[in-house]
Amino acid sequence: MTDSARRIVLASRPVGDPKPSDFRLEVFPVPQPGPGQVLLRTKWLSLDPYMRGRMSDAPSYAKPVGINEVMEAGTVSEVTASNNDKYKAGDIVLSRAGWQTHVLSDGSGLRKLDPELAPVQTSLGVLGMPGMTAYTGLAEIGTPKAGETVVVSAASGAVGSIVGQIARIKGARAVGIAGGPDKCRYVKDELGFDDCVDHRDPALAEKLKAACPKGIDVYFENVSGAVWDAVFPLLNPFARIPVCGLISQYSATDAPEMKYKTAQIFRAVLTKRLTIRGFIVSDFWGRFDDFIREMPQWIKEGRIKYREDVVDGLENAPETFMGLLKGRNFGKQLVRVAE
Amino acid sequence: MTDSARRIVLASRPVGDPKPSDFRLEVFPVPQPGPGQVLLRTKWLSLDPYMRGRMSDAPSYAKPVGINEVMEAGTVSEVTASNNDKYKAGDIVLSRAGWQTHVLSDGSGLRKLDPELAPVQTSLGVLGMPGMTAYTGLAEIGTPKAGETVVVSAASGAVGSIVGQIARIKGARAVGIAGGPDKCRYVKDELGFDDCVDHRDPALAEKLKAACPKGIDVYFENVSGAVWDAVFPLLNPFARIPVCGLISQYSATDAPEMKYKTAQIFRAVLTKRLTIRGFIVSDFWGRFDDFIREMPQWIKEGRIKYREDVVDGLENAPETFMGLLKGRNFGKQLVRVAE
Repeated sequence: MTDSARRIVLASRPVGDPKPSDFRLEVFPVPQPGPGQVLLRTKWLSLDPYMRGRMSDAPSYAKPVGINEVMEAGTVSEVTASNNDKYKAGDIVLSRAGWQTHVLSDGSGLRKLDPELAPVQTSLGVLGMPGMTAYTGLAEIGTPKAGETVVVSAASGAVGSIVGQIARIKGARAVGIAGGPDKCRYVKDELGFDDCVDHRDPALAEKLKAACPKGIDVYFENVSGAVWDAVFPLLNPFARIPVCGLISQYSATDAPEMKYKTAQIFRAVLTKRLTIRGFIVSDFWGRFDDFIREMPQWIKEGRIKYREDVVDGLENAPETFMGLLKGRNFGKQLVRVAE
Repeated sequence: MTDSARRIVLASRPVGDPKPSDFRLEVFPVPQPGPGQVLLRTKWLSLDPYMRGRMSDAPSYAKPVGINEVMEAGTVSEVTASNNDKYKAGDIVLSRAGWQTHVLSDGSGLRKLDPELAPVQTSLGVLGMPGMTAYTGLAEIGTPKAGETVVVSAASGAVGSIVGQIARIKGARAVGIAGGPDKCRYVKDELGFDDCVDHRDPALAEKLKAACPKGIDVYFENVSGAVWDAVFPLLNPFARIPVCGLISQYSATDAPEMKYKTAQIFRAVLTKRLTIRGFIVSDFWGRFDDFIREMPQWIKEGRIKYREDVVDGLENAPETFMGLLKGRNFGKQLVRVAE
């Protein structure tokens, strides 16, 4: 009798917020590895906001997931059977298995993880794509200097939490923007940001201004919308704006109205000599060696902390992902698919 | 009997387009140089779009001209009397005398010009601020590579004409946007751009698309408004947008409506990883030595051409400036104040 595997496929392209019927759980036989192949069993599945983009067929930097195709994701997987000389059963690897329990691989694109060095799921978070996103976006575009003010939105999340802590390491003032008092407390008290402002506060603009008495030199954009509206008037001359994400817009069906119009943005770009630059982590893969040398050291020294939000069971991935887009996660969102 | 000097002062802050009554011509006695001073007589006065910003008290990178103060400008002047060891009567200097026939100076900020090297008024154009603006904005932000497509607006103007020609020197395809068939013909036939599109053409967007079959890698922004609307959909991944000017907006009393909204701009910034960066020439003074070495050489080799639009008489400066904002000039706008 064959063991059964499970996967979650994209059933339809969401219009607006994704809903349960946009996903479908399928059961299929565990596949058998052919020559040169390994069978991977998913242990950890990473959920990240960029996946909303993959559900849409609007032009973007990556091609969309096809209808009836498995949702994409980074995963930590265990090799359970191997016909590949480079991997043996029991190896733990970073992979892109997607939202499924089992997958075959020819070994390309896998990276072996050492469970002695760090908890393996950190390769999906602080030591993985989100950590590297924070590290490179700040180093290559934000370039914070000592004494400057760095503001980051989604400040308790996988990327934002690291941005602010690195800003502190660089001697800058770090101000977070997060959703709700619990997250704000965590950002200030646990992560050590200088301040954190609740984006749900109706007085967001005034609170942010008070938290940034010398204006904003770097704004690390994860969110857009009302948060940008609050940040924009506070930008200093020569401010840098790494644009990493726009989570508040990802499910918008039309271009959302924002307070400041295109003409006003450009006027400020000119008169304040702003730099607005979009990036994705793969633009800076050349910095991976620096990242993987510095980040574990900072963690060891207690200068970088991180938090994981763990949900058990592949079947809960869709609902958890929908919550992530609404900011219901608290820390790096992971699904534990198997122990 | 004292000779009389003339100056044009800002009489009132324009609301919308500047009008004649916003300026006032004043007659005053030619001043006498005190110890260490020189008397300068203006020969050439430069008119540039940035002056519209100086007439407004909205926050910007420079403080505004005060009411009843002389309008600011770069000038080429002759030393007519000197109590300063560094200058003697007959010296020709680059200065910032403003819109007036005579001014005293203690010698600071002056630069001696050699009339044998180049026509002195080029220090206000191709060998001066506009040329340096084109050179640095393209080199530091645009960074065109061979085979890329560079689009520049106000392409027959003092800055735009140089941008496109440098782009060609760098091996890029240069496409201009200019106002009317005469300017477009000049940009293509005289300056050697690969193509030029008329921004008054109702089919601007389609024409620009046809002129840029491989999309746009660098857009040097001088104009904003409908020109930006035509450029934006054609931007390639990793496009760079040096924002040098927004002349179509300078006299707007409210933020002009533009086709693409703030949220759409940011979506493209992220998915295409655009870089939008404002600058003014003084941000890059460190490049002056490079500029003043390369540009005269390019002119000598016939690789950079330039055109001057000369009006005689200080009294014509206001009307000429109003025309400049409407694109009525054809080439670098100069006022010949004295032979």
